[in-house]
Amino acid sequence: MPISPPTAVLATNVVVFTIRDDLLVVLLRSRPREPFQGVWSLPGGLVGDNEGLEDCAVRTLRDQTGVRGVYLEQLYTFGRPDRDPRGRVVTVAHYALVPPAQLHGLDEDDGQRCWQPVNELPSLAFDHDRIVAMAHQRLAAKLDYSTIALQFMGERFTLSELQRVYEIILGEPLDKRNFRKRVGGLPCIEQTGDWFRAGNHRPARLYRVKQPGRVDIIK
Amino acid sequence: MPISPPTAVLATNVVVFTIRDDLLVVLLRSRPREPFQGVWSLPGGLVGDNEGLEDCAVRTLRDQTGVRGVYLEQLYTFGRPDRDPRGRVVTVAHYALVPPAQLHGLDEDDGQRCWQPVNELPSLAFDHDRIVAMAHQRLAAKLDYSTIALQFMGERFTLSELQRVYEIILGEPLDKRNFRKRVGGLPCIEQTGDWFRAGNHRPARLYRVKQPGRVDIIK
Repeated sequence: MPISPPTAVLATNVVVFTIRDDLLVVLLRSRPREPFQGVWSLPGGLVGDNEGLEDCAVRTLRDQTGVRGVYLEQLYTFGRPDRDPRGRVVTVAHYALVPPAQLHGLDEDDGQRCWQPVNELPSLAFDHDRIVAMAHQRLAAKLDYSTIALQFMGERFTLSELQRVYEIILGEPLDKRNFRKRVGGLPCIEQTGDWFRAGNHRPARLYRVKQPGRVDIIK
Repeated sequence: MPISPPTAVLATNVVVFTIRDDLLVVLLRSRPREPFQGVWSLPGGLVGDNEGLEDCAVRTLRDQTGVRGVYLEQLYTFGRPDRDPRGRVVTVAHYALVPPAQLHGLDEDDGQRCWQPVNELPSLAFDHDRIVAMAHQRLAAKLDYSTIALQFMGERFTLSELQRVYEIILGEPLDKRNFRKRVGGLPCIEQTGDWFRAGNHRPARLYRVKQPGRVDIIK
């Protein structure tokens, strides 16, 4: 290593997705200080001296928003030299998925925190708009080859509810028969034996995830 | 920002893949200095003050190995606090794909540089074995939902040659009919109108990529 190599401040940011009112929404936080004081931004913070990157993402998410115990994955590292007016700050972006059923107490918007539809975001601090766009793209792509959408489901769900989650993320309707052929037989979900009944509708089978928290690649 | 936030040294490393002797191989470099002097490692280096992350990956790859103008993509950022004995060094890992046809002058192994089969790697410096493993995993996964394998093909190729590339990366044989159904109709490749003829074999159609360098997501 040269005598004094260039250094950078390390940060993490987290794009937290959930589904609310039939929309894919992202958790935003009003920045408490300069730069961009009062501007909406992603939760995040500086990585501690002896802290892992994902540990930092988990910690800042918990401390700033109360979200914990959810699926979280590294997304991409953003390091354009001019992305922060204070100097070289590189952020290791992550994304997290919160099942709507776990939103109790997190779903109240206040002046410091709000959920915004991913397609109707206000102007964000730094390059956070690019981070959200990439996270949305990654999530949508992963629907096609993994079981990531199951992270949004509650303990028991119907295939119609699961299909609706896919459609909300992709922003387009899916063919019911193709969807069921592809997803209904996944080995990571199983029928509970119970049925969901609503009014005069046909009863619908209720499913559950065999190993919650696990995301499989599907072929 | 706190008065003096923790800082880190930023590096990049590149996992360079090509196909040689029917094997997926990775470019290794003998480390010229401590730590791990003389140990095989991935090409890479420290990110300059005003340098973008990908720019650094491209530069160090070119300077250390002569590889240039190839497909390159950010993979994952490795930042365990103890991954480098010198202190906090975070590496933004990338991977690159070199078509075997472009290997002229790069395919000579010497004491400083060598290509090693991805499944028979020597012990590598730092956490570079984990980086290679993740890059291989990502590449194999992307075969299934993108046109990334085309990055390995020459100007003109047969579908049998393309199938062989898939099989080498995945480490398993594929069904010829299914492969052709899936790949033969991709809009990003086209028939050249010419045929490959060898001995008494049936002539095979020659294909080319419409937009070299571009990787599409396929559904």
